Amino acid sequence: MKRQREIKAVLFDIDDTLFDSTTLAKMARMNAIKAMIECGLPIRNVQKGYSLLMKIVEKYGSNYDEHFDRLLEALGCSRDPKIIAAGIVAYHDTKLGYIKPNPDVIPTLIALGDKRCTLGIVSNGRSVKQWEKLIRLGLHHFFDAVIISEDAGSEKPQSKIFKVAIEELGVKPEETVYAGDDPETDGLGANTAGLISVRIIKQERRESVLNKNMQPKFAIKKISELLSILEPT
Amino acid sequence: MKRQREIKAVLFDIDDTLFDSTTLAKMARMNAIKAMIECGLPIRNVQKGYSLLMKIVEKYGSNYDEHFDRLLEALGCSRDPKIIAAGIVAYHDTKLGYIKPNPDVIPTLIALGDKRCTLGIVSNGRSVKQWEKLIRLGLHHFFDAVIISEDAGSEKPQSKIFKVAIEELGVKPEETVYAGDDPETDGLGANTAGLISVRIIKQERRESVLNKNMQPKFAIKKISELLSILEPT
Repeated sequence: MKRQREIKAVLFDIDDTLFDSTTLAKMARMNAIKAMIECGLPIRNVQKGYSLLMKIVEKYGSNYDEHFDRLLEALGCSRDPKIIAAGIVAYHDTKLGYIKPNPDVIPTLIALGDKRCTLGIVSNGRSVKQWEKLIRLGLHHFFDAVIISEDAGSEKPQSKIFKVAIEELGVKPEETVYAGDDPETDGLGANTAGLISVRIIKQERRESVLNKNMQPKFAIKKISELLSILEPT
Repeated sequence: MKRQREIKAVLFDIDDTLFDSTTLAKMARMNAIKAMIECGLPIRNVQKGYSLLMKIVEKYGSNYDEHFDRLLEALGCSRDPKIIAAGIVAYHDTKLGYIKPNPDVIPTLIALGDKRCTLGIVSNGRSVKQWEKLIRLGLHHFFDAVIISEDAGSEKPQSKIFKVAIEELGVKPEETVYAGDDPETDGLGANTAGLISVRIIKQERRESVLNKNMQPKFAIKKISELLSILEPT
């Protein structure tokens, strides 16, 4: 039996899988720092401001709303709404320029649909924020199930969030592919839940050896390579 | 003595004075309703959805963050992050298209600066939000004092917020113009604080007679007419 008969659903992570969220966040934060300096943030070096901001992002998490307020505090400044607003505007303007699907994503989703694959999303994060990304990416009509951790009450690498998705789609784990970039959440979670794990490798680099339970069934560099996994020659 | 020697500062409201915030808000909300309907909001008529949304805006205030959540509740729906996100994206995308200074604003600000007028802002609202507007309008470098009610601890029509502004600029009330659209906040406040009140009339219409203390010293249809107030012939 050919493998394409076995795979009925393909589920995706969003960030760094459907679009380059790492570059988006870095460029948006760098431009925010530049705009804040232009409005009076007392720091000369953009890179130093960026490093300080990243410490705050790590401390408070990426979904925290007041990174720029904390940055001012860390620099010993009183709250300055002009500087904060300059950072917010630059961040969002930059975001809009970078929130585009990777070039092969839409053709691949269409091709998977043509092969009668059901498509879905399994992603950690706040549900409205993740839906905003799908809508800005122009991808929100492709998926029959969109499962976000905030709604699911479970987050990757836990199995439950994957089970919620496959139950909503009416498919079995062994006939479902999960494609994501992060072995520790995506790989481990998909493997534990019994799905076929596919790792999207962001860039060529030497990495530490992965634990066996994080190792993907397949590793690919572009989403379009999913098509050859479904149709092995 | 000519009047131009008497006027040392011109202060402005932001919304419906430097840009058409009424049209922005209406178009952004209409497009939000359309996008939410496209994502499943159970209402057929855009106008009906808009009217319902406006009741929620009036109830919770325009700076409330969860208008769309309350709209879903008012329609008997459970929380749907896809529909909420669709509304947020459409609102913000529309906003970006409409947040432009009225065509004569920048030339007028430059001309006032050439006449050695000091320029300032006195506006009610949240400070970061109001600064965001000035930055998106590209006007944030024009003003020597930007006084927002959240920071001032006072809001129009109270006199204090105007006094904070003229003290920061080092001018007297009788040598300061305040230009705004709303007689009940801008006119009354500027008159009470002893400033020269100028009303920006949004459109030609028959209005109820204003209380004497709300009546502006001058009424103009375009910001550029300020220049003729400063240089009477």
